[in-house]
Amino acid sequence: MTITLYSLCGADVARPFSPHCWKAVMALHHKGLAFEERPLAFTAIPTVEGGFSRTVPILRDDQELISDSFRIALYLEETYPEQPSLFGGQGGVAAARLVEGYSQHVVHPAITRIALVDIHDMLAPADQAYFRKSREERLGKTFEEMAAGRDAAIAALPAALQPLRHMLGFRPFVGGAAPLFGDYILFGALQWLRITTGSIHLPPDDPVSLWFDRCLGLYDGAARAVV
Amino acid sequence: MTITLYSLCGADVARPFSPHCWKAVMALHHKGLAFEERPLAFTAIPTVEGGFSRTVPILRDDQELISDSFRIALYLEETYPEQPSLFGGQGGVAAARLVEGYSQHVVHPAITRIALVDIHDMLAPADQAYFRKSREERLGKTFEEMAAGRDAAIAALPAALQPLRHMLGFRPFVGGAAPLFGDYILFGALQWLRITTGSIHLPPDDPVSLWFDRCLGLYDGAARAVV
Repeated sequence: MTITLYSLCGADVARPFSPHCWKAVMALHHKGLAFEERPLAFTAIPTVEGGFSRTVPILRDDQELISDSFRIALYLEETYPEQPSLFGGQGGVAAARLVEGYSQHVVHPAITRIALVDIHDMLAPADQAYFRKSREERLGKTFEEMAAGRDAAIAALPAALQPLRHMLGFRPFVGGAAPLFGDYILFGALQWLRITTGSIHLPPDDPVSLWFDRCLGLYDGAARAVV
Repeated sequence: MTITLYSLCGADVARPFSPHCWKAVMALHHKGLAFEERPLAFTAIPTVEGGFSRTVPILRDDQELISDSFRIALYLEETYPEQPSLFGGQGGVAAARLVEGYSQHVVHPAITRIALVDIHDMLAPADQAYFRKSREERLGKTFEEMAAGRDAAIAALPAALQPLRHMLGFRPFVGGAAPLFGDYILFGALQWLRITTGSIHLPPDDPVSLWFDRCLGLYDGAARAVV
């Protein structure tokens, strides 16, 4: 059976950009599984798989349907135990949840302050209206206010990545000698920034830039191919 | 041979408070090793073990001398492999470095903004002069300015702990079902806050408070006994 991954795109289906979907893409490559990616616009998500989930990624694997990137990774770990582990054991699952917490509550807000208007501009018109309204409500700021703070947000990004940079002083990947799901969690955040704004806005010799480049090179450069 | 751990105290040797030393204390308990703790004032650190290290913790185990809490944990893991693991494998070591990065670059600054003047007040007069000068230089603020911002710093603490709180929604410990060194890293930070200020300044039903209380209860309440 073919595995299908529903992900997120804007007006251009060739540029899926969601951080959470990139985590699932990298997890599937890590497990060495063939899959078909089907990028969807925000407003198209409720139209697939009988409205199974309001958010992507959604994974269909034969009779199984799973949403949420972390639950997809846990499903893949359990279903394909003979393939390379995504977590390196039960302690690794909990540690990856802490990485997820750091990514979503420290790194994502820092990226949102940079990329929000770029994301909006990538969307098809029908999605732009939904996106602007929902994000302005969530953030309590207009897009014009966010755009005015963009340079300051870029200047603040390196500090948000200091925990990752600290770790990279000791090991090449969050997973140790080789990447695990914890790497893909943080990679997904920076890949989101790269695809939506064209850059990760860090000096090329920053340890985070060097690690990000190592991740872009994984699996025959699968993630580098999307620009 | 008796293992000796040199740690940090103020005027009262019964109240060692350094976050890094607490990580080492908990790691020794985790490994089930008997040890003697010798708390030192800041200015006494260069006088022990021939000036081996400018910082504590310092571990002496027979002929071995090790400084730095993470290196102590790695030493214990390697030297006492038959005792319970502190990392749960090589991937766990790298993940713990990310926890350390998060603790030192997100949680520690949030705690410093609350506890700095309390720490100063715990010290003996000779150490107070050293501490005030070095910390005011490092932070670029006077103690009077820090004290004026204390209420705002307490209000900002829950946000700094959101990555940990997120993780605790899924597993009882950073290590999964049971604590690993990653727990002790973050526990050390909050134990430092508790001992220096008398409170961790979080609601008792906060998942972080409940986890912290579980940690205080480990090893016959060894950490709870210091107040």
